[in-house]
Amino acid sequence: MSKKLKLGMVGGGEGAFIGAVHRIASRIDDRYELVAGALSSDAVRAKRSALALGIDETRSYASFEEMAKAEAAREDGIDAVSIVTPNHMHFPVAKAFLEQGIHVICDKPVTIDLAQALELKKIVAESGKIFALTHNYTGYPLVRQARKMVADGLLGDIRLVQSEYIQDWLTDAQEQTDNKQAQWRTDPEKAGAGGSLGDIGTHAFNLASFISGLDVTEVSAELTAFVPGRVLDDNAHVMLRYANGAKGLLWSSQVAPGNENGLKVRIYGDKGGLEWAQENPNELWFSPFGEPVQKLTRAGHGVGEVANRVSRTPAGHPEGYLEGFANLYSDVADAILAHNENLPAPEFSNHIPGIAAGIAGMEFIEKVVQSSRDNGVWTSLDGHK
Amino acid sequence: MSKKLKLGMVGGGEGAFIGAVHRIASRIDDRYELVAGALSSDAVRAKRSALALGIDETRSYASFEEMAKAEAAREDGIDAVSIVTPNHMHFPVAKAFLEQGIHVICDKPVTIDLAQALELKKIVAESGKIFALTHNYTGYPLVRQARKMVADGLLGDIRLVQSEYIQDWLTDAQEQTDNKQAQWRTDPEKAGAGGSLGDIGTHAFNLASFISGLDVTEVSAELTAFVPGRVLDDNAHVMLRYANGAKGLLWSSQVAPGNENGLKVRIYGDKGGLEWAQENPNELWFSPFGEPVQKLTRAGHGVGEVANRVSRTPAGHPEGYLEGFANLYSDVADAILAHNENLPAPEFSNHIPGIAAGIAGMEFIEKVVQSSRDNGVWTSLDGHK
Amino acid sequence: MSKKLKLGMVGGGEGAFIGAVHRIASRIDDRYELVAGALSSDAVRAKRSALALGIDETRSYASFEEMAKAEAAREDGIDAVSIVTPNHMHFPVAKAFLEQGIHVICDKPVTIDLAQALELKKIVAESGKIFALTHNYTGYPLVRQARKMVADGLLGDIRLVQSEYIQDWLTDAQEQTDNKQAQWRTDPEKAGAGGSLGDIGTHAFNLASFISGLDVTEVSAELTAFVPGRVLDDNAHVMLRYANGAKGLLWSSQVAPGNENGLKVRIYGDKGGLEWAQENPNELWFSPFGEPVQKLTRAGHGVGEVANRVSRTPAGHPEGYLEGFANLYSDVADAILAHNENLPAPEFSNHIPGIAAGIAGMEFIEKVVQSSRDNGVWTSLDGHK
Amino acid sequence: MSKKLKLGMVGGGEGAFIGAVHRIASRIDDRYELVAGALSSDAVRAKRSALALGIDETRSYASFEEMAKAEAAREDGIDAVSIVTPNHMHFPVAKAFLEQGIHVICDKPVTIDLAQALELKKIVAESGKIFALTHNYTGYPLVRQARKMVADGLLGDIRLVQSEYIQDWLTDAQEQTDNKQAQWRTDPEKAGAGGSLGDIGTHAFNLASFISGLDVTEVSAELTAFVPGRVLDDNAHVMLRYANGAKGLLWSSQVAPGNENGLKVRIYGDKGGLEWAQENPNELWFSPFGEPVQKLTRAGHGVGEVANRVSRTPAGHPEGYLEGFANLYSDVADAILAHNENLPAPEFSNHIPGIAAGIAGMEFIEKVVQSSRDNGVWTSLDGHK
Repeated sequence: MSKKLKLGMVGGGEGAFIGAVHRIASRIDDRYELVAGALSSDAVRAKRSALALGIDETRSYASFEEMAKAEAAREDGIDAVSIVTPNHMHFPVAKAFLEQGIHVICDKPVTIDLAQALELKKIVAESGKIFALTHNYTGYPLVRQARKMVADGLLGDIRLVQSEYIQDWLTDAQEQTDNKQAQWRTDPEKAGAGGSLGDIGTHAFNLASFISGLDVTEVSAELTAFVPGRVLDDNAHVMLRYANGAKGLLWSSQVAPGNENGLKVRIYGDKGGLEWAQENPNELWFSPFGEPVQKLTRAGHGVGEVANRVSRTPAGHPEGYLEGFANLYSDVADAILAHNENLPAPEFSNHIPGIAAGIAGMEFIEKVVQSSRDNGVWTSLDGHK
Repeated sequence: MSKKLKLGMVGGGEGAFIGAVHRIASRIDDRYELVAGALSSDAVRAKRSALALGIDETRSYASFEEMAKAEAAREDGIDAVSIVTPNHMHFPVAKAFLEQGIHVICDKPVTIDLAQALELKKIVAESGKIFALTHNYTGYPLVRQARKMVADGLLGDIRLVQSEYIQDWLTDAQEQTDNKQAQWRTDPEKAGAGGSLGDIGTHAFNLASFISGLDVTEVSAELTAFVPGRVLDDNAHVMLRYANGAKGLLWSSQVAPGNENGLKVRIYGDKGGLEWAQENPNELWFSPFGEPVQKLTRAGHGVGEVANRVSRTPAGHPEGYLEGFANLYSDVADAILAHNENLPAPEFSNHIPGIAAGIAGMEFIEKVVQSSRDNGVWTSLDGHK
Repeated sequence: MSKKLKLGMVGGGEGAFIGAVHRIASRIDDRYELVAGALSSDAVRAKRSALALGIDETRSYASFEEMAKAEAAREDGIDAVSIVTPNHMHFPVAKAFLEQGIHVICDKPVTIDLAQALELKKIVAESGKIFALTHNYTGYPLVRQARKMVADGLLGDIRLVQSEYIQDWLTDAQEQTDNKQAQWRTDPEKAGAGGSLGDIGTHAFNLASFISGLDVTEVSAELTAFVPGRVLDDNAHVMLRYANGAKGLLWSSQVAPGNENGLKVRIYGDKGGLEWAQENPNELWFSPFGEPVQKLTRAGHGVGEVANRVSRTPAGHPEGYLEGFANLYSDVADAILAHNENLPAPEFSNHIPGIAAGIAGMEFIEKVVQSSRDNGVWTSLDGHK
Repeated sequence: MSKKLKLGMVGGGEGAFIGAVHRIASRIDDRYELVAGALSSDAVRAKRSALALGIDETRSYASFEEMAKAEAAREDGIDAVSIVTPNHMHFPVAKAFLEQGIHVICDKPVTIDLAQALELKKIVAESGKIFALTHNYTGYPLVRQARKMVADGLLGDIRLVQSEYIQDWLTDAQEQTDNKQAQWRTDPEKAGAGGSLGDIGTHAFNLASFISGLDVTEVSAELTAFVPGRVLDDNAHVMLRYANGAKGLLWSSQVAPGNENGLKVRIYGDKGGLEWAQENPNELWFSPFGEPVQKLTRAGHGVGEVANRVSRTPAGHPEGYLEGFANLYSDVADAILAHNENLPAPEFSNHIPGIAAGIAGMEFIEKVVQSSRDNGVWTSLDGHK
């Protein structure tokens, strides 16, 4: 039986998008209870948001620093905090809670830049606490199935890793309207050095790495800001070289009309291929070389335990984005419970993206930006993790 | 702001499928707290299940009768009960709770037969309480969008209503193994007179009615039990006539290999057509006559408030079966809150299938079975609701 | 090496649709040369059409009777005639040429009614000539693959045969404009007793029969003419019973907005299922029960000789309607050459729909119309072929 | 009315793939008659092939030089020659026929390298004859529709041009078996400097250019030969910069299991997007920014004359690869007829890829190879055409 964990949240007040997603994800499997929050930097807004969410008034905090201290001091203090602020606040908030001995679930990207991520790594290590990064697409059952099939050698030696994440919502200058999401996501101060690259390209990068199990060693990139006045890229083209000799292309875009959240990964080896797309996450296409293409379905025939353990509904009853997100939350709950009782980490903890994935993502952004500035020269990654 | 309702559950103990679905659906929008249950007719199992779900020992009941009385007597008793037993228990359980003044959320089909459904109608009316039937597919945002488009006349006068719900899991004699789901769903004592017809055909019927807004007046049917030894149909072919002159076909099957939960509705009028399929619920295909087909997406361009109010994630981040189910639960929560405060029913309460939809479904089963027994003769429906 | 056959054509002059299709189909594999024609009942038009097609003036005839006689008398007379007139002319034209000892390739439906088809059967038999009926969908490579897979038992015992052919072009009263296609196809004098049923429903019927290899024994039907003023059905719903106990649904419609030529067949047995759709003819979906669905592609992995012998391009280079049609023409050419040299019919001649398929189709129309007139009563087929 | 042209062919004897395709393409619209050939460099084979194709013995030549002279000398000599040899023979054959005043239809790529292509340009100019290059994908009706929509500004200013052409047939070392296609296509002597790049990447390049109307100015590339022992690339990753500031990615591969002829183009501007894939060529997806995605179908609603003039069958009756190829042949026939009568070139001659497209393709190959050798440095194109 699973003990319910006490959860706090920083950010995610009224009008925020990702905060609501985290809350639903935490609830789906009934593993968490939201009991505390510093939901907004605006005090009135923070209070109103807390009230609306049924958080006790005494545990609605005006600042995350206060919250970290107060919760750490309570006997019934939170077990973990979810950080759902704009990117530039991830670091200070994570630091504050980790230093108070509180586990952290942090939205991606992990920090504003690589240096900060490496600093955070030390803080995580010193804290001895769990740090989970919500690269949520790794929570989809068939993504895990895909990873398992690659690891099991069903594709043979991997040669090609092609990924893309394309959207259209920044096709025009949304950031010049009152669209807050557009404002901070196109602002280097709040978003970091990557535009589409940081916002969604890192998801593609993380997903491709998660499934392929391969490390990128070099990148050659072309970033573009198509919309007049935009500082950060709204389109990224990246060529990749992998440690084992595999090659890849990665494309992120927020200016491709007709695309909503077109995250797609295609991986090919000398024995077979796999294709998965986020907008139809209940299907995985498997092509053993020389045989007909197979359509694997979530919870369907030919899909294994690694996917089935994170499925809730029978095949043909689609699960979606929130269930995939919930899988991360539930895996983290298991990890926290084990940690709290000094048990070894559960077997499937390796499915939880952590500080290593965060660092890898930040280095990816940094090197892609650098390559693009250097007119696309192949730029080595040091392999920070 | 939303007050959290106290929920009880009858059925849904260990190993049950639909009970878990109801629980998740009730949690997703944080509108309910599960506090009481009679989760199994087996006392040990009931207790163990309650414990696993975090239900207080004192509110885990050995029988639903006891639970109904005890909860009604408590000051902090449940606001509503979810009934997730096999079909034949829906009536007695619903009766017990309604008579104690407790709102009911009941899995479909409403009862074991039409007579019982009509009796339940009286009980519901006398109780003055809310009775919601989880024809959950009506909770999908784009199903509601489709209904609105029909109502708004975008398809013109409706001529054709084609629906199907096809599966393959009963292709062989599963009920002769230890598959409990297969056992009770193929047993007339527990399932009622319809096999595939009652289990999934009624979903297709309900969905087609919900979207089209039309009443079936006559049916001509052919039921078949293909698997040797099976008593109830595992395949149903039905021709339909509608009150406005429209015609329809309905096909349900549990012996169609390669199909998981293939629920699909296609509706055509003199001005346009619509197509929606449950396995890809985030897409709705709209064909204005003489123009290119349009792909409408959940939360995407051209989709209206009726769908957007029950969407949680942006377009391209798929929502699925559980979110659709949750929409029913949340609409019921609003309806209960309004009811409890003597406010008028919320505008969108008409999206909640209730006793009328249940009765219509039971009459549909009865008349289809009758037509099939009478070698397909067109058989009139009395239009019970 | 293949000798080129001399072909004549009746009908198919300027403005006709299907005549041009037959001509292209006859040319694709270079097996025929069009040398004679009575292309229109309007003499001027006939002449002009012949000229445009490069037919020698002396072999452009004012009437089919004249043509049959004249060509039979020539040493270099035509080997075969293609009949591409409106339906009511199929019989007299076929009769005229068969009686002159000329092979016939006839567009479907074979005649105006069953009686006429049975009469034609005698004429064909007496003539000893080849009579081919262009139920062209049987020419698609993957349709033949599907038939083979059923015959080989890959689906086990067939239980369900579901077919549909849906269009939208008669959603409004096109026949009241100057649309000649709409005029004759909705006119019982020229089209016969079936509207959508005869025009496209028979294609679905033929295809389902071709693939399944099963005989229909009874039908129960509901025909509707939705468009005001229309005499023949524009929508047909049919339930079917097969000799082996299988059941089926067949739906034809010309009033389903958004559908162009939506011909689709789904067949299910106790060991697996198959699905094929004409608008994507290069894919065949095969579902062995209990295994992942497989996508078979024309000329791709897992597809056999029966399909590959009628494929021209590699997998992934789509073949379409005209190539499928051409396969019939080329099979007929082989059959004619063998016949002319008194050789046994080629092995794959059984892929050519002939008078038997034509009769079966006419009886299907007749019995469906009769069942519908009798309010859907199950109506037996005598099994004419 | 259209006069039938006399066609000769060089290459395309027994066992060749593309020769048969050209012959069918030339026949579909009945615009050509194949009357002469030098079908193989092997004399016996050449003779046998000619016989099988019904070419008169006296016009089956042992060498292309002989054929060019002999046909030029005949009163009834060929109007045009189709060149379907391996790549390295394109130049000498084209030269021979052009110098004899015979129009040329040449398979792609135009020559073995850019220098040769530029030389051929002069020869074409001096000859005054028509030189058509069968970049056949430009013949698909919806490709032309796409080009028209871009030209009409429906996508606004183009920002992104993404193309790919992926196959899997060279996943293993086919060239080390007796697969002749694999042998010459992986041999630099016969294929030129590009492997997958030259064979299929140039198709993607040509198609992207044809639809977008844009010129590539710089490329940065990574070519890989994954299969041990292979000299030419079997995978190409290319980043592109266009003259107007647009950016692109191009990916060609012959080692991507599960892909047959996956040629796909996606183009995005500030007002909309388009997507087209060769394996489903009867669909074109159009996304006006801020509106639902539209599915345009060949010959369907919203598709214009530019596509309809090269369509033969109604919407929903799929046309495929051969029909698209035939459209080129028929356009060339019109152009030749006009040329022969000293009439101005027909309006739609600009749809025929010619020497300019060939040169552009050869320069593309050359610069991509150069960039890849230079470790991906951005390499300028001179814009040869």
